Amino acid sequence: MKTVVILVNPKYGGNLGAIARNMMNFDVEELRIVGTPEILDDEAYIRAVHAKNILNNAKFYSKLEDAISDIDFTVATTGAVCGDRNVNRVPITPRELAKKHSSISGTLGIVFGREDDGLKNEDVELCDILVSVPTSNKYPILNLSHAVSVILYEIYFESFSEDIPYDLNMKNASVDEKNALLRFFNEFVDRSKDVPDYRKDICKTIFKRIVGRAFISGKEANSLICVFKDKCPK
Amino acid sequence: MKTVVILVNPKYGGNLGAIARNMMNFDVEELRIVGTPEILDDEAYIRAVHAKNILNNAKFYSKLEDAISDIDFTVATTGAVCGDRNVNRVPITPRELAKKHSSISGTLGIVFGREDDGLKNEDVELCDILVSVPTSNKYPILNLSHAVSVILYEIYFESFSEDIPYDLNMKNASVDEKNALLRFFNEFVDRSKDVPDYRKDICKTIFKRIVGRAFISGKEANSLICVFKDKCPK
Repeated sequence: MKTVVILVNPKYGGNLGAIARNMMNFDVEELRIVGTPEILDDEAYIRAVHAKNILNNAKFYSKLEDAISDIDFTVATTGAVCGDRNVNRVPITPRELAKKHSSISGTLGIVFGREDDGLKNEDVELCDILVSVPTSNKYPILNLSHAVSVILYEIYFESFSEDIPYDLNMKNASVDEKNALLRFFNEFVDRSKDVPDYRKDICKTIFKRIVGRAFISGKEANSLICVFKDKCPK
Repeated sequence: MKTVVILVNPKYGGNLGAIARNMMNFDVEELRIVGTPEILDDEAYIRAVHAKNILNNAKFYSKLEDAISDIDFTVATTGAVCGDRNVNRVPITPRELAKKHSSISGTLGIVFGREDDGLKNEDVELCDILVSVPTSNKYPILNLSHAVSVILYEIYFESFSEDIPYDLNMKNASVDEKNALLRFFNEFVDRSKDVPDYRKDICKTIFKRIVGRAFISGKEANSLICVFKDKCPK
């Protein structure tokens, strides 16, 4: 599903630059703005850094209705959650949205409101669903660009099926690799003359726990196997 | 587990303000800075908005070693993932960190590097583990304060066991509430003289699918039950 970010009457160019950068960080290309191109000031371009093209290609609209007219599924965002007395304001979490996102096709539009007072009720009513980032009661309102980063991150992250989605030749140790490491370590301990027999089991248990907690990679597991394999401890 | 944010030689006050705000948004109170108090300029206080106290209470250190000396578990963050040839640079995701966070006690320190070139290898070596936010190859480096927001959000979100952690009298419809709504709708359809018998089943199926997709609240389910209950359709 393609994602489009829609900003309703943003006030600060700096926020637009930060949002463009976040969009490129999380592979979202299309920015629509309810407002006029004057918002794209120097600060916007400075903060966009390598994402200036997203600003250059932004589309401008005079009304939210027009900006979402061709969007298949429209999400309003809010930091002001008003309880289930107001049915327009019953939100889901960004994680629920991300799960939904992966199961539907077409274009998803995520609508963000003004920096000072967010989306109006009439804006929310134009959308299919409401999303809110869970935050502390002490200070529930996120800065606009940070709300964008959390929501786009959740959607981006959901698109991976692997445990660690970094694009490199790295992968978590498999169960077999971990078990091989533990087996070589245990044999090493059994052969060791420095570890008293009554302490051998606890050493094996501790090592196993450490490996379990450490999220080790296959490369790391194999490197450690070389440490213990067929060594003859004193 | 208590969380502490540690910034190594940040350069821009604006980023510090944005980070303080993010910390308060996600219930993290303690900020440590490797650097000098001069970094807290007007821009820092402007961007902190309601989180100025976090800046006022920030502690300053001359070396990362000192800043983390009393931290139980230290996490280095990076946007530059170098593959498993460099074992110091094998990261876990923020989500894996969040899961780990909920299972250990003590103080967690999350260390963020300079805006321009991140943490040095010697900084990373002082830490227990490395975390990286998964990002697009097209533009992998997040702005500092946005990296903070994603990582603190993940840890904050993991602390909830409920589906929707908003602090209000709102809850998702239970299975019973959804089933009651479907039952009343189905009876309504069965009584209807306008829906031909051969179309009744498909109407029931479509309605069930819509309710399933809609993340409806208990309040919404009960409101809709009133629409269908004991009505006598034409």
